[in-house]
Amino acid sequence: MATGRAIQKYEIMELAFDGPNGGNPFREIRLRARCSHGDRQVLVDGFYDGEGVYRLRLMPDAEGEWTVITESNAPEMDGRRHSFVCTPARSRVHGPVRVHDTYHFQFADGTAYYPAGTTCYAWIHQPEELQERTLETLRSTPFNKLRMTVFPKDYIYNRNEPALYPFERTAAGENDYARPNPAFYRMLERRIRQLASLGIEVDLILFHPYDRWGYARMGHANDLHYVRYIVARLAAHRNVWWSLANEYDFMLDHKTVGHWDTFFQTIQERDPYGHLRSIHNGNLATNYDHTKPWVTHVCIQNPHVHECKEWRKKYGKPVIDDECEYEGNIPLPWGNISAQELVHRFWVMAANGCYAGHGETYLDPNDELWWSKGGVLRGESCPRIALLRETLEGLPGGLTPLEEEWVWGRVAGGASGNHRLLYFGPHQPVAWSFGLPQDVDYQIEWIDTWNMTVTSVRQTFRNADSIPLPGRPWMAVRIRPMV
Amino acid sequence: MATGRAIQKYEIMELAFDGPNGGNPFREIRLRARCSHGDRQVLVDGFYDGEGVYRLRLMPDAEGEWTVITESNAPEMDGRRHSFVCTPARSRVHGPVRVHDTYHFQFADGTAYYPAGTTCYAWIHQPEELQERTLETLRSTPFNKLRMTVFPKDYIYNRNEPALYPFERTAAGENDYARPNPAFYRMLERRIRQLASLGIEVDLILFHPYDRWGYARMGHANDLHYVRYIVARLAAHRNVWWSLANEYDFMLDHKTVGHWDTFFQTIQERDPYGHLRSIHNGNLATNYDHTKPWVTHVCIQNPHVHECKEWRKKYGKPVIDDECEYEGNIPLPWGNISAQELVHRFWVMAANGCYAGHGETYLDPNDELWWSKGGVLRGESCPRIALLRETLEGLPGGLTPLEEEWVWGRVAGGASGNHRLLYFGPHQPVAWSFGLPQDVDYQIEWIDTWNMTVTSVRQTFRNADSIPLPGRPWMAVRIRPMV
Repeated sequence: MATGRAIQKYEIMELAFDGPNGGNPFREIRLRARCSHGDRQVLVDGFYDGEGVYRLRLMPDAEGEWTVITESNAPEMDGRRHSFVCTPARSRVHGPVRVHDTYHFQFADGTAYYPAGTTCYAWIHQPEELQERTLETLRSTPFNKLRMTVFPKDYIYNRNEPALYPFERTAAGENDYARPNPAFYRMLERRIRQLASLGIEVDLILFHPYDRWGYARMGHANDLHYVRYIVARLAAHRNVWWSLANEYDFMLDHKTVGHWDTFFQTIQERDPYGHLRSIHNGNLATNYDHTKPWVTHVCIQNPHVHECKEWRKKYGKPVIDDECEYEGNIPLPWGNISAQELVHRFWVMAANGCYAGHGETYLDPNDELWWSKGGVLRGESCPRIALLRETLEGLPGGLTPLEEEWVWGRVAGGASGNHRLLYFGPHQPVAWSFGLPQDVDYQIEWIDTWNMTVTSVRQTFRNADSIPLPGRPWMAVRIRPMV
Repeated sequence: MATGRAIQKYEIMELAFDGPNGGNPFREIRLRARCSHGDRQVLVDGFYDGEGVYRLRLMPDAEGEWTVITESNAPEMDGRRHSFVCTPARSRVHGPVRVHDTYHFQFADGTAYYPAGTTCYAWIHQPEELQERTLETLRSTPFNKLRMTVFPKDYIYNRNEPALYPFERTAAGENDYARPNPAFYRMLERRIRQLASLGIEVDLILFHPYDRWGYARMGHANDLHYVRYIVARLAAHRNVWWSLANEYDFMLDHKTVGHWDTFFQTIQERDPYGHLRSIHNGNLATNYDHTKPWVTHVCIQNPHVHECKEWRKKYGKPVIDDECEYEGNIPLPWGNISAQELVHRFWVMAANGCYAGHGETYLDPNDELWWSKGGVLRGESCPRIALLRETLEGLPGGLTPLEEEWVWGRVAGGASGNHRLLYFGPHQPVAWSFGLPQDVDYQIEWIDTWNMTVTSVRQTFRNADSIPLPGRPWMAVRIRPMV
């Protein structure tokens, strides 16, 4: 008989234990649990949450009775037993996102997930009021993924000191990397849960080079303890993705490729849910080798989105170009493309069966740039990205890029069964005959990706030689079989 | 003492001889001349022009006295002697275009030449009235190079029969490849001279695959005779460039790379003026190997203009992307980009020290598409290309692309001494600090490449940290040292 409170599927079952308070519990006390559901066993790590309190978290992914038995080198926490019943998930809770169909994603419950991400790197390190404004903004955007760092950031437009530090720290600014700061993590977890409630996946960046506090150079042993601690705390959150680094290659002088491999392997071993794992490059020429087995999908920075089909082929995994440059006007070349160009890049990626990420970098008198601090959006790409996301969601599955290079190396087109999504970008044909589904009646929508109009072309076509098009740029066409 | 009429430099000195009329003079009679200017000798081939008349042409490239002595296997044309004085060139006659400074071009007299070409493949095979309209249109464009074929063309929007055929032909349509048609060549030469008078270089395409008459498959021996004949007739025209093929790789089943090499070598040997030589690809992946020594410059077809710096490095020669797709609206993906996109591609190439080519393919009720037939231009790119050409002509020499990939792989920028030309495309910074000349006072012009405004920014800057920019897309900046 289950004794604990019932837990809905994909929510967090948390157990708290009083345990040893002396020495350094973060390093000295081990706690884990075997969680059983029928014949299946899941091993989860516990963690020290300060003030003598230890916690264990489990995200049940199957309905029915679960049994939890602890193991610890602290006798009072060893062999403790708990059971609970997992009940059906609430509506709109679909579980973690998984790779699906080699190049795409879906939630654990089979719901399609088409990433449309944005970036607010250091939003949790801003004043409370600004953080709340960020959440408020996100509420009315199409974004279903957010790239953000664990650590604070020291970079242009973002020099402010955080309110909470991820490690204990003396007044003089000396870090104790052996002692994570539980208050910081409680704040982080609260934000992750709020994002979950908005339907937003958290692409959580574990390391980045823009640092003045020391977190980028803690040394490999401390790095590994940090990775294990954060996995133990956060893995039970269904909407977490592990992004090992922002611009990993800008840290290669102190974190080698071998170190990054070890972080991946550690996460793979310690995260019982297999949350998505990837890593982001700085230089365009130094992508991490995403063919490595511990990488679940390709995260890259690259403005040359028409090459996305090559990345897809090279790595054989889903591709997200999380930094195809940002809408904005700052003097840095990665942060000043027009809204129209960013929307264009999103569509090129999407019609080729890949995905793009958003960021916004308009100069602001208070240095509140969305990409770093969050706040409000000023740009014009956001509603257009919403239209793209809706368009994808009207397809039966992810797109496979069309192959004839002399056509599809110039315009973008993908197929999902008998459905097609073609995107013409700066091309403006008045008619089109390539890549249409055959032996089927189909209906056509003209999507003006910039003016955000969708026009159903009234005729139906059957193996037509060509379809009419309006002869203006920035058009997409969605072709669906008649039902 | 010179006996002949004086000839201006870079014009054509032509001698006519009566000679044998029987058999096949095209194949059986050899005529050439040693042309001497001081210690220098130039060997030129003569050619048979029908009805017992043979001609020899020389384009003198040096002032002073020239002596010509013929050699022939026809005794009446052997050992004939002629002399003439070469006088200074007329104004605006600058001689043939040469490669200059590895990646650029200039005329033989040292005048800069920045190619801004267009394409009317089969314009000389259209009705006379349409040909005249083409010339009339060209008169008011910025174009200083025209891609055109020798042979007629059989392809969409161009199925009409030519008025003149390049070889003798029976009423039943049987070709005699051993007998070029002098009337055809006289027409071709007239058009080449008319283009010269408009300041337009002729990028003359010797072979192409879009053929129903047999010219694409004459066999290698006939091909070689044709190449020699056309060089003998046309090489004295200062504005001829040899473009061995349009889409050579679409003919590889009957003309191997070895055959193409031989054509190049033959032209190199027979053309005493060393006119520019290149060859154009169909598939993006099958560029001819432009590093071969007989290729003077790179002619390619490729829409991915941001890769132009790689082509420049790979081949170490001037790069002209003669088919970076055409402004138009036809259903073919290479023929339907917007004017804005074509202008953008021209600027990307130019700021990277390369060059682009224009073509226009708007559907027309009479199938009069500029790219194939000439006629009139309907598009919007032409005046913007004029602005680009003027902008380049205001620089002291060709541009060398700026190198830092994280900046200049995203926006386009080139240097010519202390001058800079930066092109931002879809980037819209409000300020910029990269790639500026140092240790010099300089003045700045904002060039709105689409709206065609040039704004001198009134301040002068000296090693400034950054320059102001208007924060909108499609801008270029020309930076020139104060004088």
